[in-house]
Amino acid sequence: MTAAYHELEQRFARLNALREAAGVLNWDSSVMMPSGGAEARSEQLAALDVTAHHMLTDTAMGDLIGRAEQERDRLDVWQAANLREMRRAWLHATAVPADLVEALTRATKASEMVWRDARPASDFAMVRPYLAEVVRLTRQMADAKAEALDKTPYDALLDQFEPDGDSREIQGVFDDLAQFLPGFLDDVLAHQDRQPAPMTPEGPFPEAAQTALAKRLMETVGFDFNHGRLDTSLHPFCGGVPDDLRVTTRYDESDFTSAMMGVLHETGHAMYERGLPERWRRQPVGEARGMALHESQSLLVEMQACRGPEVVGYLAPVFREAFNGRGDAWSADNFRRLYTRVGRSFIRVDADEVTYPAHVILRYRLETAMIRGDLAVADLPGAWNEGMHALLGITPPNDRLGCLQDIHWFDGALGYFPTYTMGAIAAAQLYEAACRDVPTIPGHLGQGDFAPLLTWLREHVHGQGAHLSTDEVLAQATGRALDPEAFKRHLKRRYLQDAA
Amino acid sequence: MTAAYHELEQRFARLNALREAAGVLNWDSSVMMPSGGAEARSEQLAALDVTAHHMLTDTAMGDLIGRAEQERDRLDVWQAANLREMRRAWLHATAVPADLVEALTRATKASEMVWRDARPASDFAMVRPYLAEVVRLTRQMADAKAEALDKTPYDALLDQFEPDGDSREIQGVFDDLAQFLPGFLDDVLAHQDRQPAPMTPEGPFPEAAQTALAKRLMETVGFDFNHGRLDTSLHPFCGGVPDDLRVTTRYDESDFTSAMMGVLHETGHAMYERGLPERWRRQPVGEARGMALHESQSLLVEMQACRGPEVVGYLAPVFREAFNGRGDAWSADNFRRLYTRVGRSFIRVDADEVTYPAHVILRYRLETAMIRGDLAVADLPGAWNEGMHALLGITPPNDRLGCLQDIHWFDGALGYFPTYTMGAIAAAQLYEAACRDVPTIPGHLGQGDFAPLLTWLREHVHGQGAHLSTDEVLAQATGRALDPEAFKRHLKRRYLQDAA
Repeated sequence: MTAAYHELEQRFARLNALREAAGVLNWDSSVMMPSGGAEARSEQLAALDVTAHHMLTDTAMGDLIGRAEQERDRLDVWQAANLREMRRAWLHATAVPADLVEALTRATKASEMVWRDARPASDFAMVRPYLAEVVRLTRQMADAKAEALDKTPYDALLDQFEPDGDSREIQGVFDDLAQFLPGFLDDVLAHQDRQPAPMTPEGPFPEAAQTALAKRLMETVGFDFNHGRLDTSLHPFCGGVPDDLRVTTRYDESDFTSAMMGVLHETGHAMYERGLPERWRRQPVGEARGMALHESQSLLVEMQACRGPEVVGYLAPVFREAFNGRGDAWSADNFRRLYTRVGRSFIRVDADEVTYPAHVILRYRLETAMIRGDLAVADLPGAWNEGMHALLGITPPNDRLGCLQDIHWFDGALGYFPTYTMGAIAAAQLYEAACRDVPTIPGHLGQGDFAPLLTWLREHVHGQGAHLSTDEVLAQATGRALDPEAFKRHLKRRYLQDAA
Repeated sequence: MTAAYHELEQRFARLNALREAAGVLNWDSSVMMPSGGAEARSEQLAALDVTAHHMLTDTAMGDLIGRAEQERDRLDVWQAANLREMRRAWLHATAVPADLVEALTRATKASEMVWRDARPASDFAMVRPYLAEVVRLTRQMADAKAEALDKTPYDALLDQFEPDGDSREIQGVFDDLAQFLPGFLDDVLAHQDRQPAPMTPEGPFPEAAQTALAKRLMETVGFDFNHGRLDTSLHPFCGGVPDDLRVTTRYDESDFTSAMMGVLHETGHAMYERGLPERWRRQPVGEARGMALHESQSLLVEMQACRGPEVVGYLAPVFREAFNGRGDAWSADNFRRLYTRVGRSFIRVDADEVTYPAHVILRYRLETAMIRGDLAVADLPGAWNEGMHALLGITPPNDRLGCLQDIHWFDGALGYFPTYTMGAIAAAQLYEAACRDVPTIPGHLGQGDFAPLLTWLREHVHGQGAHLSTDEVLAQATGRALDPEAFKRHLKRRYLQDAA
């Protein structure tokens, strides 16, 4: 420990406490706030954001980081990792000139607003100049960050969401999957056609009963309601802070099955946050490693565990009891078919586990091309539709079902998309490794006991915080850096083998 | 407008946005937060507090205020008033040395914690040294602020809650009331004895029905649920921000009458905040004037309007309808007697309108004596019990029902108590003036129409923000500075005249 490093810990503790405050306010905005509070709230959040930015870019900060780095040999490995993450945060905050940050903020605000009208109207031309401006300025930002971080422009953007993410590695993994998936999807659909079609249990399912069940399922996974809540919002998410997690969902009274799986997904995110190293609260090294591992934790709980035959077998009688369900639609076999249904579709957020990577690979290819300057925004709709046809064999009839569907680019979030599929791949690797290390995990899951799985995840993933890189976490836990083989094995086992 | 003043407006806008954020987080702490979130929350609030304090005490701030004051002739009256309030905030923040602020924070934290055990145990000796330390340090703070603000030490403390409050004025008003009340109370109790005792409607009254009714009553007063919410908390309060007001209450399923009046009280606070001048959001001059006027607005709605015969006459059938009430307990006459019941009691927060001022006058006398150095903390219990006997004719059997009952002193809030009764007096003045200006107000209230009253209050009180002093607001609205005569007239009319 050195004086400079100690001062840095104090500054980051306050900085991150302000960010935590913003996190709680964001939850409130989505869950509690009446519409008339929006303007005041945006002033509050802007003040927090500007204040945190000033604290990070304060002239003393760079000096302190430099001094602490010179005395690095007096830090332990966690402190050294914390310092590395401080440097990363400082570089991102200082790399880009203030006028460019401001221009980009204005451009994304305008673009997002126009997109909200352009999407339902399926009118790409309407939003095209706004998106072009966002891409133009984002490329400038990427260049500035690339120089500061000594990365390629795209990797500098990726680093904002997935620290040390490497597009050469992603390229290889995604090319492998892009080769595997089209043929595999044909096989899955043929196999699925030989099975009975799943039935949807008939409602209504009152919201209060769904909420009670959702809470019970969260507790089953390990969620502690002394450290969190479940509420309702338009778009489900997991917010709050590690010691006070705010999970949300939405309910459809005619179908409970999707809300339950949504809650389990968000609970996976929550368990990651909850298990972050307590010693390092509000320090950079105490945060989640990145969006790929974050998504891996939600998908591990949802896709690997809860849609698997063991947990579905456990859930079927729980569902029957909760809603007094009777008949074939309530059998474990039917729920298994329902929860593993595969189909080609246009909309990413509705896609199943098998087709989802195709949606992500398409976006990844397009956004890397836009950042390189190889794809003009004007050519995006055509490139989208071609890519969709190549990867999934379907062509969107309009841009609403095509390149206008996601908010990300219009909101300035270029470099985010690949983390979804990196997360799916990591989830398969981690679950496979967990079951290899602790072979009783599937049996426990079949009894509704998540404790052995959670214990393994806490040790190998959650408790690591941002101490290691994503690849280092994966290598230590599974023996390999990000690698699609376990994901492919998982898909084949789940979607091509007949149920026991 | 000048450059220095303009810069000040920007700085205070951000500062107050951070304070608004803290306000929402405080609401969340009381209403939403699971217990396990407390530690993280206190880090968030401390970071906001320290950050706001740094912004206010930044060396540039004093220079900017000084420069803006030199160019005051280029400001309009609202800007000039805003600058005056900025100077006040800056003086309060900079008058006290940082080590004294810190010592006081530690002392109040310790004292409050011990008080939480000492009160139920009725053990004053246990908390005495802690309170003595709080009073000792508060006197030091009062001296420092007195010098900076050019006020007496007590008035410097009072200024924190009631800007420009003047203890000579309060002394005169309170002495007048202290002379009036004991004899008046005897008359009221004798008069009350000649009337039938009120009956309490018999429940149970389900919480959901009470909540629905409470919301309906809030809307009747003028509360707009696009700009606020009603929730449940252990201690009712009105929090949030002017465009997003968070009212809370608590329910007793065996008695709905007190929750309803509690909600109406908090709605009075909320209407004040909601009516603050919109042009001046997040500027010092756009804030509520002080705690006396704030309390006047809750008491005007609760005591002057809603416990008055017109509104009770309107409410009785609304209550009957909401709970399907039948019988004599549900008559307007009975509700009137119930809502104006008077009695001598030990606990301030349970006191009625007639005896409440005695509780406050006692505390005011004791706290001014402690700040002057005329009353040692060790002598507090004796002085309390003597004063209680002199003012109300009863002697607390123990300190739990005596000087240990309120958190205020143990929490360091000396200088706050008088604002309760200043508010009650101002409420009577304002209501009397409103009915003189708009004689149809009581008739409208009898129909459940609060609009004419609210319109008058918006113009004469709410919309004034902190532009004028409390006495100036009262003088402009009622023709007189704070004056107990209207309050006495109100008490005589309500408690000595027979109902129509």
